[in-house]
Amino acid sequence: MLNHDLIGAREEDLPTPALIVDLDILEANLERLAARFAGTGLRFRPHAKAHKCVEIARRQIALGAVGICCQTVAEVEAFAAGGISDILLTNEITDPAKITRLAAIPEGVRIGICVDSVLHLQLIADAIWTRPIDLYIEVDVGGGRCGTADPQAALALAREAERLGLTLAGLQAYNGKAQHLRDPAERQRVVETTAATTRNYVQTLSDAGFPPVVVSGAGTGTVDLDLQLGALNEFQCGTYALMDVDYLAIDPSGDADRYAPALTVLASVISAAPGRAVIDAGLKSFALDSGMPVPRDLPGVTYGNASDEHGILRNVDSQPLPAIGTHVHLIPDHCDPTIALYERIHAVRDGLVEEVWPIVARGKW
Amino acid sequence: MLNHDLIGAREEDLPTPALIVDLDILEANLERLAARFAGTGLRFRPHAKAHKCVEIARRQIALGAVGICCQTVAEVEAFAAGGISDILLTNEITDPAKITRLAAIPEGVRIGICVDSVLHLQLIADAIWTRPIDLYIEVDVGGGRCGTADPQAALALAREAERLGLTLAGLQAYNGKAQHLRDPAERQRVVETTAATTRNYVQTLSDAGFPPVVVSGAGTGTVDLDLQLGALNEFQCGTYALMDVDYLAIDPSGDADRYAPALTVLASVISAAPGRAVIDAGLKSFALDSGMPVPRDLPGVTYGNASDEHGILRNVDSQPLPAIGTHVHLIPDHCDPTIALYERIHAVRDGLVEEVWPIVARGKW
Repeated sequence: MLNHDLIGAREEDLPTPALIVDLDILEANLERLAARFAGTGLRFRPHAKAHKCVEIARRQIALGAVGICCQTVAEVEAFAAGGISDILLTNEITDPAKITRLAAIPEGVRIGICVDSVLHLQLIADAIWTRPIDLYIEVDVGGGRCGTADPQAALALAREAERLGLTLAGLQAYNGKAQHLRDPAERQRVVETTAATTRNYVQTLSDAGFPPVVVSGAGTGTVDLDLQLGALNEFQCGTYALMDVDYLAIDPSGDADRYAPALTVLASVISAAPGRAVIDAGLKSFALDSGMPVPRDLPGVTYGNASDEHGILRNVDSQPLPAIGTHVHLIPDHCDPTIALYERIHAVRDGLVEEVWPIVARGKW
Repeated sequence: MLNHDLIGAREEDLPTPALIVDLDILEANLERLAARFAGTGLRFRPHAKAHKCVEIARRQIALGAVGICCQTVAEVEAFAAGGISDILLTNEITDPAKITRLAAIPEGVRIGICVDSVLHLQLIADAIWTRPIDLYIEVDVGGGRCGTADPQAALALAREAERLGLTLAGLQAYNGKAQHLRDPAERQRVVETTAATTRNYVQTLSDAGFPPVVVSGAGTGTVDLDLQLGALNEFQCGTYALMDVDYLAIDPSGDADRYAPALTVLASVISAAPGRAVIDAGLKSFALDSGMPVPRDLPGVTYGNASDEHGILRNVDSQPLPAIGTHVHLIPDHCDPTIALYERIHAVRDGLVEEVWPIVARGKW
């Protein structure tokens, strides 16, 4: 079925499994984050890897975002083609062909890229650029993934960049590990360490004549703490827009309804037996890397036993299970890789499909 | 990049992460299974949910498969459009619109569907059919998912089908749980129970005048045992073609190299630090529901710490890690949902891309 044909459809008539966003909830989430930045002079640049949809990116920018982050070159291409004009690639690239693809993106799109080694600088310097590129040195602020290991290594890169004729725009200082810490005290401690490390890098680079203009980082799990600590001037939260079970469990603000789950998977009960209801959404409809999806509006019902195209709902204390042939909504545990499983998001209001958004950056590397 | 432009490319020039199938290994796997059935009078009908590619289905049929299995209506549509002319939908459908879509598939394609309740029969009977449909009663042979609970329930369905003017073609008797049992003795015991249960259903239905012509089941994990036990006359193994870490660990035959891993993800090392190499393949490039992918040709190197677009290789006992900028192959832990993450498979021989196969049934429900 073509996306256009689905507009105006009733939610209950959609073929399942179907990815649904509740527009009222999405809009409230988008406005809540934007309100945190209004009048602060601080920038927010939501990570589009969370949703992969041009339509959500446009709404974020309309509410004040300076642009978006992407995680792959093909994501940058997809969002640039969709009209997004300021994109930071928060990742390192070692493939010369991918650097060439970045260089071919129209000049009207501002692009930034991360580096953490001389190899990255060399590849960027070797490419033929007819457009500017903003260089961000990624620093390992505790995530233990990419990034330079200490400020002196970052300074060496800044000097090498200068020698190669490249201009340093800022620092990428994102701590992925900190985002998902459930214990508020531990998260506070880790974010404070992250902020101190970040300041240390800024100081070292500034003292040596390479002041980073933009210091970018943070996610939905740490944004409130990061705003208090003041080490960043650009914020990359992505999940806040749609939310998921994992981030709902973190509740960074202590205010449980601040960001609400806007994203669900609509599934059908295709088979039933005493104590179980089998739904048509399994490993190919949910990313289960961090936990199980949670049925919405079904207290005492849990999801499990996922196989490729099936999952099983079971009940606790004889709570009612949905009947065969009915629909159920489930909140994904991890929104980013769950969205990557689908072709489109159905944007629903009052039970009707208002828009259908192609997940244009799905499977794009 | 268009698929056609990739043909003839060197594997090492592909943008990563890229899904690769080694054609020599695939062909050997396909031939090994086909050889088990040659001259037996038994049928094999590989499950196409494992690979989702018309090109692999065609090769399976060319080697003697009677057709394929699919798990969703949209998969049936995709494979029918690709020229596959005999498809069993090994699943229950409760959506009338999906039944209507099945009824609209050209008559030249033979189609079967599973049922386990009167609701399914009623929906099929209510649809307007201008083509035949083969009805399979699914039986719960121990998997605890879909399927009738006992032979009397199956008999009641057979009678109701007759009353509705529908013709019973056979039984779906697949035990998903049995496929992944690591302990050979336990697997043997479970498969024997499955076979006894299946025979019991066949006896009950036959005695009542509803002999199932086709009794279909088995997977890569149990096919050898199922062949010995003789309760089935059609076999649905799918993973054998490409294999994955999970099924390699089972080794149903005791002959470790019988089915070899044909499928890998090619990834790039995009960042490196002492003791770790960060690759560009994470949660959006691997399904991690059952375990981690295994780096190929890198003894003592493990994959972990997956995030959306990153994974980290670490070494045991100071084994060498791949250097930044180099490529690595990883064998997925679970091939079916991993393949569902990609747009295409690069079919490679001697280091060159020989064909590019669109994963046409990806995300199709």
